[in-house]
Amino acid sequence: MSGGADMSGNPQPWVLHPDRALPAEPALRGLARDIYATTRDLPIVSMHGHVDAEVFAADQPFADPAALFVTPDHYLVRMLLSRGVPHDALGVPRRDGRPVTTDPRAIWRTFAEHWPLFRGTPTRFWLEHELAEVFGVRTRLGADTADAVYDELCARLAEPRFRPLALLDTFRIEIISTTDAATATLAEHRKLAERGWGERIVPTFRPDALLDTSSPDWPAELRKLGDVSTYDEYLEALRERRAAFKAAGARATDHGHQSADTTPLDIADARRLFQAALRRTITAAESAAFLANMLFEMARMSTEDGLTMQLHPGVLRDHDPAVRAARGPDVGYDIPVHTEYTRALKPLLNAFGHHPNLRLVVFTVDETAFSRELAPLAGVYPAMLLGAPWWFLDTPDGMRRFREAVTDTAGFANTAGFVDDTRAFLSIPARHDLARRVDAGHLARLVAEHRLDLDEAADTARALAYDLPRAAYPSPAPVSTVEPRPAGGAA
Amino acid sequence: MSGGADMSGNPQPWVLHPDRALPAEPALRGLARDIYATTRDLPIVSMHGHVDAEVFAADQPFADPAALFVTPDHYLVRMLLSRGVPHDALGVPRRDGRPVTTDPRAIWRTFAEHWPLFRGTPTRFWLEHELAEVFGVRTRLGADTADAVYDELCARLAEPRFRPLALLDTFRIEIISTTDAATATLAEHRKLAERGWGERIVPTFRPDALLDTSSPDWPAELRKLGDVSTYDEYLEALRERRAAFKAAGARATDHGHQSADTTPLDIADARRLFQAALRRTITAAESAAFLANMLFEMARMSTEDGLTMQLHPGVLRDHDPAVRAARGPDVGYDIPVHTEYTRALKPLLNAFGHHPNLRLVVFTVDETAFSRELAPLAGVYPAMLLGAPWWFLDTPDGMRRFREAVTDTAGFANTAGFVDDTRAFLSIPARHDLARRVDAGHLARLVAEHRLDLDEAADTARALAYDLPRAAYPSPAPVSTVEPRPAGGAA
Amino acid sequence: MSGGADMSGNPQPWVLHPDRALPAEPALRGLARDIYATTRDLPIVSMHGHVDAEVFAADQPFADPAALFVTPDHYLVRMLLSRGVPHDALGVPRRDGRPVTTDPRAIWRTFAEHWPLFRGTPTRFWLEHELAEVFGVRTRLGADTADAVYDELCARLAEPRFRPLALLDTFRIEIISTTDAATATLAEHRKLAERGWGERIVPTFRPDALLDTSSPDWPAELRKLGDVSTYDEYLEALRERRAAFKAAGARATDHGHQSADTTPLDIADARRLFQAALRRTITAAESAAFLANMLFEMARMSTEDGLTMQLHPGVLRDHDPAVRAARGPDVGYDIPVHTEYTRALKPLLNAFGHHPNLRLVVFTVDETAFSRELAPLAGVYPAMLLGAPWWFLDTPDGMRRFREAVTDTAGFANTAGFVDDTRAFLSIPARHDLARRVDAGHLARLVAEHRLDLDEAADTARALAYDLPRAAYPSPAPVSTVEPRPAGGAA
Repeated sequence: MSGGADMSGNPQPWVLHPDRALPAEPALRGLARDIYATTRDLPIVSMHGHVDAEVFAADQPFADPAALFVTPDHYLVRMLLSRGVPHDALGVPRRDGRPVTTDPRAIWRTFAEHWPLFRGTPTRFWLEHELAEVFGVRTRLGADTADAVYDELCARLAEPRFRPLALLDTFRIEIISTTDAATATLAEHRKLAERGWGERIVPTFRPDALLDTSSPDWPAELRKLGDVSTYDEYLEALRERRAAFKAAGARATDHGHQSADTTPLDIADARRLFQAALRRTITAAESAAFLANMLFEMARMSTEDGLTMQLHPGVLRDHDPAVRAARGPDVGYDIPVHTEYTRALKPLLNAFGHHPNLRLVVFTVDETAFSRELAPLAGVYPAMLLGAPWWFLDTPDGMRRFREAVTDTAGFANTAGFVDDTRAFLSIPARHDLARRVDAGHLARLVAEHRLDLDEAADTARALAYDLPRAAYPSPAPVSTVEPRPAGGAA
Repeated sequence: MSGGADMSGNPQPWVLHPDRALPAEPALRGLARDIYATTRDLPIVSMHGHVDAEVFAADQPFADPAALFVTPDHYLVRMLLSRGVPHDALGVPRRDGRPVTTDPRAIWRTFAEHWPLFRGTPTRFWLEHELAEVFGVRTRLGADTADAVYDELCARLAEPRFRPLALLDTFRIEIISTTDAATATLAEHRKLAERGWGERIVPTFRPDALLDTSSPDWPAELRKLGDVSTYDEYLEALRERRAAFKAAGARATDHGHQSADTTPLDIADARRLFQAALRRTITAAESAAFLANMLFEMARMSTEDGLTMQLHPGVLRDHDPAVRAARGPDVGYDIPVHTEYTRALKPLLNAFGHHPNLRLVVFTVDETAFSRELAPLAGVYPAMLLGAPWWFLDTPDGMRRFREAVTDTAGFANTAGFVDDTRAFLSIPARHDLARRVDAGHLARLVAEHRLDLDEAADTARALAYDLPRAAYPSPAPVSTVEPRPAGGAA
Repeated sequence: MSGGADMSGNPQPWVLHPDRALPAEPALRGLARDIYATTRDLPIVSMHGHVDAEVFAADQPFADPAALFVTPDHYLVRMLLSRGVPHDALGVPRRDGRPVTTDPRAIWRTFAEHWPLFRGTPTRFWLEHELAEVFGVRTRLGADTADAVYDELCARLAEPRFRPLALLDTFRIEIISTTDAATATLAEHRKLAERGWGERIVPTFRPDALLDTSSPDWPAELRKLGDVSTYDEYLEALRERRAAFKAAGARATDHGHQSADTTPLDIADARRLFQAALRRTITAAESAAFLANMLFEMARMSTEDGLTMQLHPGVLRDHDPAVRAARGPDVGYDIPVHTEYTRALKPLLNAFGHHPNLRLVVFTVDETAFSRELAPLAGVYPAMLLGAPWWFLDTPDGMRRFREAVTDTAGFANTAGFVDDTRAFLSIPARHDLARRVDAGHLARLVAEHRLDLDEAADTARALAYDLPRAAYPSPAPVSTVEPRPAGGAA
């Protein structure tokens, strides 16, 4: 980036370098630039997002730069926390209603003063892209320019072309999925469908709160599901919710629990544990076993209804209970743990891994699993695909390591393409752009080392950016009549 | 590679780039080319192979391209399976005798149509080397050229120079080892020895089936070993089989179990568990303990007879039991698991790690162990050597990561050199060639960063390609009279 | 390096290449050179060292090259052991008093003959720096030059400018910390303080032997602590020792146990286990629980007295008990194990992770934890900082992987800067120099990929080399009156 001063000390307008995040070596740079040029303008397929459906249904101007960029972004908040800036100063609300900073300009200034903390991080890459490319800001962010940038942003936000639905076009987002509780009414999606956005903004079925019987919130969640008093009714109600989501355009389910265990229970045990959960006498071990069983059942239902199943285990949520109590979830305190996949996914893959109707996309934040477990599994089971490097790994070096770790064994075609996985709507094009740049760099190296031809690299780059995510999240067919795998049959 | 069309659209004959898999940066490329030039034509030492001895003893022409390249290669089969091609279409036989595709041309076409799946994989590198360099195929493989390439290959296979023993010379294979069940008759090796090939084609002692008492096949395996009804007779029978292998030219043993545990048992416990195994009352935990004890005993026997001990743990075999039942083992469904070495190898290394007569070569498919456990262990115990990056890690990026992870702590001299570990005889030169290229690239970087001189790099490259494997698998001396280590003595 | 012969065969004086360990690619090399130029001559902050205070207090000439470079350096000793050179030949003394080689020239020759073993290792980089840059040796080390180099070194060692205190100036060491048992008299530090070195050579409080009740030495260690017969007296005595260290200039504590567990005990349990420890009836599991409790208490005391807390778990010490019995600890047989941090540090971080008076520096030799656990933790808890890549990871490739693994999530400002962690005083400038070169290379890549501006890179390089370690180990304030965190308060 530039944006400092020229030789004579005249300030230069801030412009991002067109080759940013491409390899430095000139021959690689040239190849990467050519490959990137073929994907830069492809539509965005955003099938694993966390933007609220309400944002699109209301289609109101974004409030202010702090509410847009700072307060809700846990990447950004956690970095400021780590160097001593308290949640209060960033406007993160307290559950007890005690006051926090609400002046957006003050929050923005605090952020801008700490901008150097983000050196070398993807947050910096994304933010710069958002400011310079999306908002056309020409003043480089810093403590001294906080107000000027703030004012520029406010002016932009007032323009109609910066409303959410208009930005969908600007960003060339072909389809975007929200993430919705299994018990969500989907009212916003209905509203959007009525206005013709139903194919483009789709829900995703996330039943975590209904499957985790260890949570104190589980009984309340279950009540939202309806009048359910047996395991069989519970399964049936889940099936009905999936059908409702599918009717509303959903193409996928999403499951984020600590373990990847998918061991099924005998039906009698499942029924017994469900009753214990209702009575709140279920033990922690039993809850874990019930959850594993339910992931197995979710896979079975995916073979029935064709919804792509997304699994991203391995995060210890709310590492600091005091923060959780004071601020709620998703404020930066989720920490990965070592995660096992080979044994954990065995029951699911043995039962459904060859089923023609299943697509299981598996993510990880434990990158040691990539070459050891995930690539070998995805490289043989037809139903399994590797999700993009996720969360803490959604970075230039993380994405490079992902390709280097999995391609040898799983190739490119067993990966599901990039997902942005973000609540920050404005960062979506930046995130896809960074992924396309990094993949272009990886492919450029293969070409330069004569391990791939340039035409193949360009074809592969397009697959990674567009074709593979489209194929991983197809519009599901009507309920399948494919029979479950007969013993030994799919082999 | 080329093989497309020139500027005027004229098809160009397919030629592999001489610098393939060398680093892209011009200065590194130049250095790597110089280093690779010193190892390219060195003889091949292939001390961990899985080609059937029968192949050499019979010395018949290879049947057809499908039987040679596709059906038996689990790397290749698993990639096709992963995108939905069934075993049947690849000619992998069923245990129940139901028909599968047997037309080799049809199998070859299926493979050729899916050739793009192998982009970026080592299988592609090996296959291209085999086709272009070994068989002189000048038509680039693809769906449209499947038949042409097939016909070229068939013509070559009919020539006497493409028979197995002739290829040993073409490939400059100085010595190759097969892998043989501990109870193998070694009849083919005797036949080969009678014809003067005894020093060049040697067996390797693989007693896995005799050591794993948990397997339902164990009693039958034990019967093959002879009339054995006590633990002491069992040990003695194993000792005799080792001696028979040694007499037949063997230089090594090979052990592939899930755990690396080497904890010995009290002799009374070992005898008791052996009897329980005979009665089939042994538990899973007891079987694991017995197996750990037997790895310890195998090390002890190696100190006695001088056979190099090879350990490659950490793979969950036959991940899908339905596939195992339908097709048997080794059809692509073996998946790595997290593997512990520091504690697991402690008993063995404490007892024999300083024994002048032991060489223990340890492999892994869990690359996290390289810098954390394996390099620190091999970097202090004189008996231990690091095996080459194995199986899923036998790739350009896997081999690079291996050198970067272990050299700091273990240097080069504590590694055992490259082993090809393949059933695919034709791929052996390609695999050694790729390893030599990648090692040349690694050494070139050290030279370019002024961490090594060029003459040292060339010397090291030769060691990695030839001297170290020769030293790791020496012709074993007659039974040693070295005394076991006295308490504290070797320290 | 050079030091071979020129084109005409004339020997060339040995000079290290000024660009060694910088990236090879010309554009990166140029940027790295510019960045490195800004840090090369910065003072050294050496806050985690293991040089004996006695060395400085006595300020005698170093004995001879073998005693200085070979015998006490476990990096070097272990590599020679690994290829069969026995401890005896390297002068490592036996506990039973049996003779070992004591002729320093003979030891040096043995080392020089095995010099090629160190190709590609950091030991080679450090030793060459010490010989060529510190001692001005102009003959390249090798078997044939062993005596010549030895004589050159002996001549230098006799000069007053090579005494320890003089070298502190030569090396530009601004501050150096020793590591001292919690029960150390600190007499040498008092002596040094009297002579005006008290601010520059400071102790570090290492209570490992007092906290690990499982050790047979624990009762004797406890007696050194004074007349302590209850848990409360024990805590108080530790508090007093910390105060004594602080009065003697200490800025930090240092804790190296196998596990990172920090789970506190109820006070009643802690008292009970302490009594069991006194009676030697404590079990292994109870000792581990007591140790975890004591790490928690050490953190609490750090919030009180402001001493920086350093944690480096994950090493299985004395892997070979026979070597331990014969030679004692620290002779090359310490081996890393897989180490968990997310759950282990949770109690400590939940209680004190937001305390303004705590700085917790966490190290690892399990590099898989960097991106998965340590960067996410340090990237949110203000009290936690990431220690430099340690021990087996203190290498060019290890340091590069560290930056690539942690910067995305933790940035630069959550790292504590370089620590040399060495007993080998003469290697300190070499180790800092290597770290500065590798960091320059990493930053150069960010600049070349337009992810960072050059001025930011230079600023960051200075922070990594100097500002961050100064800030991580500040001169502690008088005992703090900061109140412990109220429930939910710091959130």
